[in-house]
Amino acid sequence: MNRRALLASLLFAGFSLAPIGTHVVADEQPLFGYSTESSRAERQWEEKLRAIPSPDNLRAYMQHLSARPHHVGSPYDKANAEWIAAKFKEFGLDTHIEQFDVLFPTPKERIVELVDGGPKFVAKLQEPALTEDPTSDQQAEQLPTYNAYSIDGDVTAPLVYVNYGIPEDYEQLDRLGISVKGKIVIARYYHSWRGIKPKVAAEHGAIGCLIFSDPHEDGFMQGDTFPKGAYRPPDGVQRGSVADMPYYPGDPLTPGVGATKNAKRLKIEDAATITKIPVLPISYGDAQPLLAALTGPVAPAEWRGGLAITYHVGSGPAKVHLKVKSNWETKPIYDVIARIPGSAFPDEWVIRGNHHDAWVNGAEDPISGLVAVLEEARAAGELVKSGWKPKRTIIFCAWDGEEPGLLGSTEFAEEHYDELRAHAVAYINSDGNGRGYLNIEGSHTLEKFSNDIAHEISDPETKLSAWKRQQLHEIANAKTPEQREEIRKRTDLRIPALGSGSDYTAFLQHDGVAALNIGFGGEDGGGIYHSVYDDFYWFTHFSDTDFVYERALAQTGGTAVLRLADADLLPFEFGDFADTVQTYLKELKALSQKMQDDIKERNRELEEGVFKATNDPKRPLLPPPAEVVPPHLNFAPMENATDALTKSAADYRKALEQANSNGGAALASASLAEVNKLLIESERKLTNSEGLPNRPWFKHQLYAPGFYTGYAAKTVPAVREAIEQKQWKQADEAIVVVGHVLQGEAELISSAAAKLTAATAH
Amino acid sequence: MNRRALLASLLFAGFSLAPIGTHVVADEQPLFGYSTESSRAERQWEEKLRAIPSPDNLRAYMQHLSARPHHVGSPYDKANAEWIAAKFKEFGLDTHIEQFDVLFPTPKERIVELVDGGPKFVAKLQEPALTEDPTSDQQAEQLPTYNAYSIDGDVTAPLVYVNYGIPEDYEQLDRLGISVKGKIVIARYYHSWRGIKPKVAAEHGAIGCLIFSDPHEDGFMQGDTFPKGAYRPPDGVQRGSVADMPYYPGDPLTPGVGATKNAKRLKIEDAATITKIPVLPISYGDAQPLLAALTGPVAPAEWRGGLAITYHVGSGPAKVHLKVKSNWETKPIYDVIARIPGSAFPDEWVIRGNHHDAWVNGAEDPISGLVAVLEEARAAGELVKSGWKPKRTIIFCAWDGEEPGLLGSTEFAEEHYDELRAHAVAYINSDGNGRGYLNIEGSHTLEKFSNDIAHEISDPETKLSAWKRQQLHEIANAKTPEQREEIRKRTDLRIPALGSGSDYTAFLQHDGVAALNIGFGGEDGGGIYHSVYDDFYWFTHFSDTDFVYERALAQTGGTAVLRLADADLLPFEFGDFADTVQTYLKELKALSQKMQDDIKERNRELEEGVFKATNDPKRPLLPPPAEVVPPHLNFAPMENATDALTKSAADYRKALEQANSNGGAALASASLAEVNKLLIESERKLTNSEGLPNRPWFKHQLYAPGFYTGYAAKTVPAVREAIEQKQWKQADEAIVVVGHVLQGEAELISSAAAKLTAATAH
Repeated sequence: MNRRALLASLLFAGFSLAPIGTHVVADEQPLFGYSTESSRAERQWEEKLRAIPSPDNLRAYMQHLSARPHHVGSPYDKANAEWIAAKFKEFGLDTHIEQFDVLFPTPKERIVELVDGGPKFVAKLQEPALTEDPTSDQQAEQLPTYNAYSIDGDVTAPLVYVNYGIPEDYEQLDRLGISVKGKIVIARYYHSWRGIKPKVAAEHGAIGCLIFSDPHEDGFMQGDTFPKGAYRPPDGVQRGSVADMPYYPGDPLTPGVGATKNAKRLKIEDAATITKIPVLPISYGDAQPLLAALTGPVAPAEWRGGLAITYHVGSGPAKVHLKVKSNWETKPIYDVIARIPGSAFPDEWVIRGNHHDAWVNGAEDPISGLVAVLEEARAAGELVKSGWKPKRTIIFCAWDGEEPGLLGSTEFAEEHYDELRAHAVAYINSDGNGRGYLNIEGSHTLEKFSNDIAHEISDPETKLSAWKRQQLHEIANAKTPEQREEIRKRTDLRIPALGSGSDYTAFLQHDGVAALNIGFGGEDGGGIYHSVYDDFYWFTHFSDTDFVYERALAQTGGTAVLRLADADLLPFEFGDFADTVQTYLKELKALSQKMQDDIKERNRELEEGVFKATNDPKRPLLPPPAEVVPPHLNFAPMENATDALTKSAADYRKALEQANSNGGAALASASLAEVNKLLIESERKLTNSEGLPNRPWFKHQLYAPGFYTGYAAKTVPAVREAIEQKQWKQADEAIVVVGHVLQGEAELISSAAAKLTAATAH
Repeated sequence: MNRRALLASLLFAGFSLAPIGTHVVADEQPLFGYSTESSRAERQWEEKLRAIPSPDNLRAYMQHLSARPHHVGSPYDKANAEWIAAKFKEFGLDTHIEQFDVLFPTPKERIVELVDGGPKFVAKLQEPALTEDPTSDQQAEQLPTYNAYSIDGDVTAPLVYVNYGIPEDYEQLDRLGISVKGKIVIARYYHSWRGIKPKVAAEHGAIGCLIFSDPHEDGFMQGDTFPKGAYRPPDGVQRGSVADMPYYPGDPLTPGVGATKNAKRLKIEDAATITKIPVLPISYGDAQPLLAALTGPVAPAEWRGGLAITYHVGSGPAKVHLKVKSNWETKPIYDVIARIPGSAFPDEWVIRGNHHDAWVNGAEDPISGLVAVLEEARAAGELVKSGWKPKRTIIFCAWDGEEPGLLGSTEFAEEHYDELRAHAVAYINSDGNGRGYLNIEGSHTLEKFSNDIAHEISDPETKLSAWKRQQLHEIANAKTPEQREEIRKRTDLRIPALGSGSDYTAFLQHDGVAALNIGFGGEDGGGIYHSVYDDFYWFTHFSDTDFVYERALAQTGGTAVLRLADADLLPFEFGDFADTVQTYLKELKALSQKMQDDIKERNRELEEGVFKATNDPKRPLLPPPAEVVPPHLNFAPMENATDALTKSAADYRKALEQANSNGGAALASASLAEVNKLLIESERKLTNSEGLPNRPWFKHQLYAPGFYTGYAAKTVPAVREAIEQKQWKQADEAIVVVGHVLQGEAELISSAAAKLTAATAH
């Protein structure tokens, strides 16, 4: 624990002699990137800001914004955008609405029925209104349950249960001797982003896909169901997009450019991200009769869910008729953009955002995040009124169209690509909020900064700092003693890398803007995600019922924005970053070794006859295929680059120490514009113009959503996915590319170190 | 793999040029304990024996023996004993029935009802007859569903769900702030022997105990339910004994002595093995309304079973009325004992057994094991008729009263304690049989012998040797690469130690007779255990339907008995044994270290405030208690003894090599009586007269059922359980005792080595 962490935890644990808000002590270390003097001023502004957010306001915003369904194209979506814009204006911000026009399919026809192999059954595909829940009856305005960007289709075929429908499930199906070719698959939600399921099913020859919410994942197995408890009731359905966003997000018709009125558009049939087969989501109430009508092998133990049936794989005899037909219309989306101009560096932009569109009422997703951003904007506006002048420009954004495909943020980041690459310091995203721990994920050049912010925030339940609570949580959940010791000893908690699933994607992975995603959670379980029950009633009964974590999020986001906007020297840091890249390198080498070992071992077992000998003739399981043992890869280009990175990070650390000596006086007086420019540049340098192999929209060479995971990040994606997909030549090539990018980064950092040394030399 | 293993696997894999039955080749190694000449003869007798068992006979025996319910005290129990005795006589064996008189309670009154806190519900406690299943309707003769040796009681109290009801579950309950004091607990079957559940519940102050069969363990979660599939239907109930057999098995009124007519008997109220609180087993059909009426904390994730409800812990509001009342009567039990007298060493006894009593019809348990023993006896009888004269006396046993408490075998082993300690070479047990792998467990002095037998047996499905199939199975299921390599390289597969749960217990753990338990299984899943559905219909539809594994078990048991009965030198071996004791020593040291580490770590986390910080106030979890860090134990007495053991095993190996040189001519001519006497003595030496601390009936210092596991073995129990129960002084004392016992064993082995060397010197 560093000195400040100790202080913060003592303070928040109640050991302070002075009340919170006056803990500026004489020998206090200045904030990172600040001189002693500017640090003192900054602390005062930040403390003022953190005192402003009000649970009552946050509750009132939520009640208003979630009062009616507000999906893309709905009247209330537009009304909410205008209401948000009015609020920003009321807070004193320079506000406008930016419109894009996007392809947005909505259901025209949906049929799921069991036509053979079991008692005839027609799925309801409808979430009932509940008397307890006042907004659940707005059926005229609700979007029906569906998966956006499913292709139209009308298919009838035997059913196969494919577990989560991820690639390894199909390896298991191969061993069971079951093909999905010409079949309709039924997969359960979770263990991948939903769009992976129809993609992998289609790759294996399936002609239709159902996705159901098994009670094992977010229904009665997890807790009492709504409205008695927080979890998914039998007829609850998870809507959601199935566009192939790991290929490219945003409007399927305008990849790489903003979907402005006159943008050049693809024909719908040429849009690569629309699914290849029809897909519909269903409830477990609708799924049970279909699953119960399957025979064939009993599902492997890990495939069995929470329904009171014996799960079988099929195929059939259950035969299902699936019909999906959409209105393929263009709809307007409304991004709300509000600015506080910078006083010293107006061309350096600190951006903060959360989307405003929902699948239905969306109290949790996204309103619980958006209201914090609103309250941050109000607080910032208050500070401006009290005389605060941020050095840099601050931009608050409320995105539209996130749910169907990160539309609002992606079109914005594509449309303003050049400006953002020139001006954006960082993008800080949220996408909902709950009770529990402060989760920060993102760019590792901001890892230290993230830790600094977490130290400032008081956890509402424990009164510990959010940092301390998170550290203790990580100690409690460490998998090995070594991990636990690292958590105890490392000054900064590690932050996870960003995959996808929210509006940071285009900023980070397309534009190369350093990004963070922040939010509280971990004590806010439930099963109303993307259903009509995600509403004000649910949130105020089962989540952050007194809005104290809402306030904590506003304090967190507000502090982060202020700290970036006012810094003398931008608080980027490369020691944590280089350390992170070293761990990625180690992981990749271990992964490559493990694949060799596993394939060797499996081939040996095949030769020994292990699989034949352990086959139960009454429950046959075919041997896996023999495979060529992977070659050794040449990791040297990455090893050399990572060493260079580590060296340059040490140079920068040394320069920092010099700059900070003498109370950081040099920071106050020096001209740091050139250093800050390089620091801003540091994330851009991690991208290249070619992008990832086979998905050029994704430019970042360290972070991407997995092509077969969707939400979960793949770090060093070109190398890691080539190894996972056993493309050894491509893996070797990717190592060279990544090595080159990292060498460039090392040079930039060394250059920033030199400039910082020069600027702060006496 | 040793040379003979290679030969065997090649032969059974179909690479032999000669048909099976004639694979005695010129340079073949003699059998262990045999000279070249005696080995050749023995192989011929064994091959003849293995050709005799017939699936048709085995099926016919099963159909007869499982035709009606045949529990202790029932007319058909006695009829079966007489029928078995008649069979043994028909096979030419010297047969008698030995009767004991035991306390055997049967139900007079059973009530389970939900009287408050949910919809009023009275449990059925009844397994319905099924039209498909012709013996399921013999309700007039069936024992009702109950747990034998539950104390009488009539209690009404709030219900608490305690998961498996084992000690760690109560640690979790403490953290949830839930006490069972004055409550009725409901535990699910599995993860311990059933009698542990009421024992631990009573220790924690509960006043009643229900045990239910959750569909997660052997119901619809595992496969289709009976009669469609093999698994437990909603109303299926597992009967079973709850007498505290880890304290002492057998008749509760006659611990340590045979329950003969005039034996001195305890008063019922002084019988320590009767439960302290009333217990009843129930079906999941009966459990569901009770569990559904619980509120309180949602059960921890691992506690949730397969019912379509949210599992809560309680306590209450469900309030249950439980009444159990038994007829506490004395009943006769009938052990059937059949002999083939030894020609050379009639005072050396090779004993083979399986019980004949069942809870109901018991086709699988126990008849599937018993019929193999019968067919072995028939085969041995046939050999005798063809001129075979076993050197040693062979005794076949069909025990009565195993189900209520290992009654028949325990009373026999107590009554004949002195004779058995003087004469018994080994006891080989079975207790049912199924499809799959040959499982052999038992004394490690017979580990090599067990491997030798497994090499001789052909697996019916794969035609591999049972040894080879088991080895490949273990490779497939190894948990670490190191384990896998050991399985590949070690000549002998390790055999697990015996805990309890069948008739070997008194022989091994009270009398100190080397014991093995053998049976096929692993592909014979189902959920009819101890229910009315364990019958001929079930077995012939879902288990070894063509009785080929029944034949394989008869071949295995028969080969083992012959091999022991005819050996020149008894095939005890001490290299594997010493190696096993070394692994136990390592485990104990690691366990002691781990307990230190875990307690230190937990104390540290308590000081850091980890548990407070990670507590969710809406789902409170109390911190675990701080504990004193365990002291270092003095393992030296065991280390020295284990070294001595290893040394003596090497001496014996050397003596063996000398004896085997020159085609084992010395074995054929030498007088080995004294060596064999020592070998027989070798298991006795592992017992002491004091027995285990606090349970003196258990004399064996290496193997016992866990006091809190029941079935599962605790090896080096006095030391291991003292460590587990944090009794450090007792642990140090036990190490001295075990060290002393092992030193005695080492001396015996060295002495056997010296005698063998002397006897075979030229």
